Amino acid sequence: MRRCCPLYHEAVELVGKRWSGAILAVLLESPEPLRFSEIATAVPDLSDRLLSERLKELECRGLVTKSDAGYAVTAMGRDLAPALSEIQAWARRWMTEPALR
Amino acid sequence: MRRCCPLYHEAVELVGKRWSGAILAVLLESPEPLRFSEIATAVPDLSDRLLSERLKELECRGLVTKSDAGYAVTAMGRDLAPALSEIQAWARRWMTEPALR
Repeated sequence: MRRCCPLYHEAVELVGKRWSGAILAVLLESPEPLRFSEIATAVPDLSDRLLSERLKELECRGLVTKSDAGYAVTAMGRDLAPALSEIQAWARRWMTEPALR
Repeated sequence: MRRCCPLYHEAVELVGKRWSGAILAVLLESPEPLRFSEIATAVPDLSDRLLSERLKELECRGLVTKSDAGYAVTAMGRDLAPALSEIQAWARRWMTEPALR
């Protein structure tokens, strides 16, 4: 039996880290860079402190870029769109209960 | 701007929770149920306590089933394969550094 691929392992936990997947989905959906406050509105229940921390992490890892216009995904971040779409489709097929958040 | 879909949000964090994505990948790759010790070998650096905890969680959420033969993915878990393959492909395209684990 093969060992779990370390690159996949790192990637799935990077994307699935609490709030990061939600922040990425919001940025991916927007055709334009988003302001901090716009992201905060689109991801309810997330504190400004944590949003700021996660955005910095995603910036450090090369998935998100910040400019005067706001935050946007990089090419590396945009390339996650198919994976996140698959997760969204899976969630719609299997998770019918409202999320208790 | 649309709010982040709560079902997707829950799903991405379920899959990306520390070790869960790795455990799922190992189970998905195996044509037969795996013993606890086989999963432990395939996911290095994971303690037995945490592996046991994660397997129980994945069982509770309906992604994994346990029988006398060992642990296996359910239909719900198997249906995650396309999403996890996309993450693996993304990791291979963008994460060239060895994971520091």
